[in-house]
Amino acid sequence: MVGGTFDPLHDGHKRLLDRSFALAGPGGQVVIGLTTDSFASKKIHPIRPFTVRKEELEHYIADSCLQSSCRIEPLNDRFGSALDEDFDAIVVSEETLPVAVEINKLRKEKNLRKVDIHQISCVLAEDGRWISSTRIYRGEIDVHGHLMQ
Amino acid sequence: MVGGTFDPLHDGHKRLLDRSFALAGPGGQVVIGLTTDSFASKKIHPIRPFTVRKEELEHYIADSCLQSSCRIEPLNDRFGSALDEDFDAIVVSEETLPVAVEINKLRKEKNLRKVDIHQISCVLAEDGRWISSTRIYRGEIDVHGHLMQ
Repeated sequence: MVGGTFDPLHDGHKRLLDRSFALAGPGGQVVIGLTTDSFASKKIHPIRPFTVRKEELEHYIADSCLQSSCRIEPLNDRFGSALDEDFDAIVVSEETLPVAVEINKLRKEKNLRKVDIHQISCVLAEDGRWISSTRIYRGEIDVHGHLMQ
Repeated sequence: MVGGTFDPLHDGHKRLLDRSFALAGPGGQVVIGLTTDSFASKKIHPIRPFTVRKEELEHYIADSCLQSSCRIEPLNDRFGSALDEDFDAIVVSEETLPVAVEINKLRKEKNLRKVDIHQISCVLAEDGRWISSTRIYRGEIDVHGHLMQ
């Protein structure tokens, strides 16, 4: 399981997705929680609509010929179906590691088994700082972390 | 990179090692930090000597036909060479996740790139509690988590 807003889909997101598919492996399934417009609206910058973001995700996955099956589901809160479903691992960024730790705590309280946590280190932009959607929105960098004029 | 005292080598350790080798993959290298007798002596129960623990590790790795190369190095503190070497990922248990987070913090301060963190959920014994060396030493469970009489 992996989650995000993915707007725009940048190299940090791609690293997160690629790793999720690698961990699921052939025959495995990746569940991508994609934030709903309502949940994503809490961000400090405008977000493109769910359907547009979903389509971009689907194109990336199709183009990458990733070998696991994949399901994109709407994410209405930080946890989505991670507190209910049976799955093996959650893949997070440095920013969302605490959410994964909380998910395991809550799963244990519900007598569900804890899942493995894979924390991918963030992809750095040219200036050595993280690539983030906020920085892209501000026009500081592009989706690959190149500095803009 | 992965580390531990591995005394005795139980199913939780084996899960940690198997995953480390799976993540390193064929052609990759796993560095196993094995606590020195001096560092391990801080544990609340007696620990077998470094050489004995190292031999048990080597036997497990040889018997498992794990495909990555492997180096066992002495671990004199919580960090070992993780603050100096260039490597990709650290594999930890639920107990040692905070150490991995601290390693990344210290690496950043040294201008070294952060590494990915893989936190394996603990293997449960028959009674639903973690398998741990302390419980084995106390005679509660065996290395596979079976309850002892």
